[in-house]
Amino acid sequence: MAGVLYGIGVGSGDPELMTLKAVRLIREMDIIAASGEDVKRTTAYTIVLQAVPELADKELLPIHMPMVMDREFIAKYHRKGAEEIAAKLEEGKNVGFITLGDPTVYSTFSYIEKAVKDMGYRTVYISGITSFCAAAATMGIPLAEWRESLHIIPAIHNLREKLDDEGNYVFMKNGRKITEVRELLKENGRDAVMVENCGMPDEKRYNGVDEIPDDTGYFALIIAK
Amino acid sequence: MAGVLYGIGVGSGDPELMTLKAVRLIREMDIIAASGEDVKRTTAYTIVLQAVPELADKELLPIHMPMVMDREFIAKYHRKGAEEIAAKLEEGKNVGFITLGDPTVYSTFSYIEKAVKDMGYRTVYISGITSFCAAAATMGIPLAEWRESLHIIPAIHNLREKLDDEGNYVFMKNGRKITEVRELLKENGRDAVMVENCGMPDEKRYNGVDEIPDDTGYFALIIAK
Repeated sequence: MAGVLYGIGVGSGDPELMTLKAVRLIREMDIIAASGEDVKRTTAYTIVLQAVPELADKELLPIHMPMVMDREFIAKYHRKGAEEIAAKLEEGKNVGFITLGDPTVYSTFSYIEKAVKDMGYRTVYISGITSFCAAAATMGIPLAEWRESLHIIPAIHNLREKLDDEGNYVFMKNGRKITEVRELLKENGRDAVMVENCGMPDEKRYNGVDEIPDDTGYFALIIAK
Repeated sequence: MAGVLYGIGVGSGDPELMTLKAVRLIREMDIIAASGEDVKRTTAYTIVLQAVPELADKELLPIHMPMVMDREFIAKYHRKGAEEIAAKLEEGKNVGFITLGDPTVYSTFSYIEKAVKDMGYRTVYISGITSFCAAAATMGIPLAEWRESLHIIPAIHNLREKLDDEGNYVFMKNGRKITEVRELLKENGRDAVMVENCGMPDEKRYNGVDEIPDDTGYFALIIAK
């Protein structure tokens, strides 16, 4: 019988934010896959290893995906990754693809999953703590209360000129757009907090729009109310 | 020394979706609080008991909050609940307030937390799996990919006439607005899935707008792409 592909969310940094299900499944998997040239050098692997030491003895499968913006170019890598996973499933092995945060929220797993499912294999999503929930918890502020809507915006792709929706905003993937996001927040009179590398040893917190620096990592996340 | 108030997200139904941190903290707490007249009859308690049997021996603190729409009326109950918790913190006891999903996303914990913090006590948020992540995983569909934005809308309060934002929508708290939400999706040519009581024994899944029934529970959640 063919194996099953699991997309396992491992949360945003703190290994204790892994779910019981993620821990159990990672222990049970024959093979652990992750997005990268070397699984052991991925952030997801580093997180899991702290909670599941058995990971060190697992067969690993790196799925190489270049960080570029050309979707057709990336699609080739998704197909190649899916074929590599399918070959293992065909041997009857279960594959756990570990991914930061939640596998349904901006995860490369979703592309691989579609391709593997289209080849006729069974695929399963296992929820993880999203970076925006972890960041809100770290800062001690609710993301949404009562009547408020919550808008999750990938800033690098999708920055609009006005924050005219009522409700609260999360800007993810800020990277090179960080100055633009900060100016947008100022113009709209919105206050905000930012968390960089939430739950990691090098976590940084910024309380207020004016504290947001000009250079920031890809994993910086802004919450604006 | 005064105790600490923890808001502990227990996920959306499946006890295995609790985090390692939630399990550890619940074991360590002196007192477990929950929103309801009887803690043992809350959904949060039922979920936790399956993963943490030690819960059965804990001191429990019910925080009664009526499910009404009058915010000023509810605010009195929040203050009363906060005072009851503060009395326990004052005795040096740590209180874990267990809450469905994540404590930063439409949780009654956030109101209690503010009041308790204002009284000078330390409060901590512990992330949980949100109902929308769990529902997306159950249905095997990504919530957001690539450039897509994700809009979380409490339908019962906040239904707009057009889904004119690009990106994907999650409608929560559908309840009595369910027919309206369904018609809105149809008019806008959006397909959708619905999950009721996700992760619970009585979970129901609906694949497509036309399958959405006229009567549904408060915990029905719609994902529209």
